Amino acid sequence: MTPKLARFLDSGAYATPAVAVDLDRVAANFAALHAALPDAAIYYAVKANPAAPILDRLAGLGSRFDAASIEEIRACLAAGADPGTISFGNTVKKQSAIAEAHEHGVELFAFDSGEELAKLAQAAPGAKVYCRLSVSQSGADWPLSRKFGTSADHARDLLIEARDLGLIPHGVSFHVGSQQTGVGAYRTAIAQAAMVFTDLRARGIDLRLLNLGGGFPIRYREDVPPIETFGEAIMASVRAAFGNDLPDLLIEPGRAVVGDAGVAVSEVVLACARAEDGGRRWVYLDIGRFGGLAETEGEAIRYRISAPGIAGAATPAVIAGPSCDGVDVMYRDTGYRLPSALKAGDRVLIHDTGAYVTTYASQGFNGFPPPQEYYL
Amino acid sequence: MTPKLARFLDSGAYATPAVAVDLDRVAANFAALHAALPDAAIYYAVKANPAAPILDRLAGLGSRFDAASIEEIRACLAAGADPGTISFGNTVKKQSAIAEAHEHGVELFAFDSGEELAKLAQAAPGAKVYCRLSVSQSGADWPLSRKFGTSADHARDLLIEARDLGLIPHGVSFHVGSQQTGVGAYRTAIAQAAMVFTDLRARGIDLRLLNLGGGFPIRYREDVPPIETFGEAIMASVRAAFGNDLPDLLIEPGRAVVGDAGVAVSEVVLACARAEDGGRRWVYLDIGRFGGLAETEGEAIRYRISAPGIAGAATPAVIAGPSCDGVDVMYRDTGYRLPSALKAGDRVLIHDTGAYVTTYASQGFNGFPPPQEYYL
Repeated sequence: MTPKLARFLDSGAYATPAVAVDLDRVAANFAALHAALPDAAIYYAVKANPAAPILDRLAGLGSRFDAASIEEIRACLAAGADPGTISFGNTVKKQSAIAEAHEHGVELFAFDSGEELAKLAQAAPGAKVYCRLSVSQSGADWPLSRKFGTSADHARDLLIEARDLGLIPHGVSFHVGSQQTGVGAYRTAIAQAAMVFTDLRARGIDLRLLNLGGGFPIRYREDVPPIETFGEAIMASVRAAFGNDLPDLLIEPGRAVVGDAGVAVSEVVLACARAEDGGRRWVYLDIGRFGGLAETEGEAIRYRISAPGIAGAATPAVIAGPSCDGVDVMYRDTGYRLPSALKAGDRVLIHDTGAYVTTYASQGFNGFPPPQEYYL
Repeated sequence: MTPKLARFLDSGAYATPAVAVDLDRVAANFAALHAALPDAAIYYAVKANPAAPILDRLAGLGSRFDAASIEEIRACLAAGADPGTISFGNTVKKQSAIAEAHEHGVELFAFDSGEELAKLAQAAPGAKVYCRLSVSQSGADWPLSRKFGTSADHARDLLIEARDLGLIPHGVSFHVGSQQTGVGAYRTAIAQAAMVFTDLRARGIDLRLLNLGGGFPIRYREDVPPIETFGEAIMASVRAAFGNDLPDLLIEPGRAVVGDAGVAVSEVVLACARAEDGGRRWVYLDIGRFGGLAETEGEAIRYRISAPGIAGAATPAVIAGPSCDGVDVMYRDTGYRLPSALKAGDRVLIHDTGAYVTTYASQGFNGFPPPQEYYL
């Protein structure tokens, strides 16, 4: 908890549920990422938290932006970002969104299929494009499935096709999965990417960009390797695979920029023992899976939860959201413990909720509004 | 598809994703429920779709309302509902919400724990309360887990406690799970509830209310028993369990009132074969799990999807949402088929999406706004 967040929480000047983000911590994380990977351009993954104060602060620090939609691109432009610093990173885009981005001056686009390439050729002629590879995401707490990416062979063919369509085949990308705690995933992926560079050089195409994606982990309840470990492992793999002819490197951190800069405050709505659940204690909060904590699905992301000021021993608790929906249960199996004295009206903190919380919140499930947001 | 919805879709006067609801169909469903269970008061489960035009129409038809939150209660009052016709049905409520409801004149409250009862005694003195039983939900496509309800023995003790706290012990409720396709679940649950009535009569407490909950199924891809079958089975069970001294009956339908009155229109963003997924065809829509189709989690609710005007054979397809999130995949295993000619820019219809869609939609995940809503 940063001092600024602690002061805000002490002030009590907010209704729950609320999410507060310390912009100085955002800036510090950005600096730490730059220090760990000085050779890589940082494209902040806007989807992690697109709030204007965050985009403003990052734009001021010289960050670039990875956008998932035309709405996110508009938000970056509103924050003063140069369109030339925005990557349209979703490989699945409406043609109208591509056209609008292109009109705004966005030059860099992701793709992973021939169908997307055709849309790009039509709506963003002459744009720089990079092809997303499908790589192993083993080790990621929030993997991205087979929804994105293609094989190295197919990527090579598509990048040739891109040139033939009048686009600029600019590079390749991959994503090792979100909250990826292993550095090993990068080695294989970078080697795969390098093969595409080599193959294409033989075909007269000089790729420039290696987009290393995001997924850098932050500490929730368990320790993770520090960002320096990732920086070193990535650079060693890049040198091993590319020798002296290093490509332009790009990373797309989101969680690692804003995750631990935020804290959620929630009120306990009910705490009681459930005879029908073997006497287990259930704690119902005023934020749940549909109020922003969507990444608790399958108990994938395990947030640190504390109840400051509540004395007494901690006992096992199932932790659920406030809605009438039975799937709105955050933790049953992970083994959370909360003070046995916790009762309705008490406040709990859900830590490291700066990323992937506010935007997941439903617009009004069961009538509950999204959490209030505070940027400090 | 109702003629009114068909005309609306033909008009093209909307952007996608959109959800359109035929209010006449809502009224017809309300009438059908009343005809199937004429002895039960209908409390529309507002959480299914709280849009003002729906609440207005239902209030005009004499519907009562089951609300999950104070925000839903305010919406009902704004639609002209008499506070005496509103049940605050969430067993997990903030004390401030109870107090506000009580001030507005709401008289009927659910609970299932001693802790909630204490809040009700304090914030809604003299209110009518009913205790939710935990019953088997086997047969439900969207069960409500162990999050709610208690045993018949505990319910009996709690209802006595309610009287001692100055509340009016008014009855019991249960919920057999949402999209419950079996009528058998009601028989056991009603017998359990009747035992509580009998036990309490011996203790000098005359319960009046049997709240049968909601969960009545609608036809998605598979046939379900008609509502008449549920009505007959429920009334037979009630008569068997209560004899001639029938309690006041209450049902809380949501899906059965608005589900098949709505249709979602979505644009195909990308359709392509995924070599990395064994050559499977993926179709990416501009609505997904975080754009409202949350009940596709685990492929639980299997919507009927059609692509009118697209000719050609249907072939297997994985169906995914537009976001960069790997879990934003709606159907992989259910065996959906879509026309092989389907391509980016084409429109598909997702049928029977009037319930549990609009409110689940995230406020802006990946920058995508919630679907536009149209009430006809």
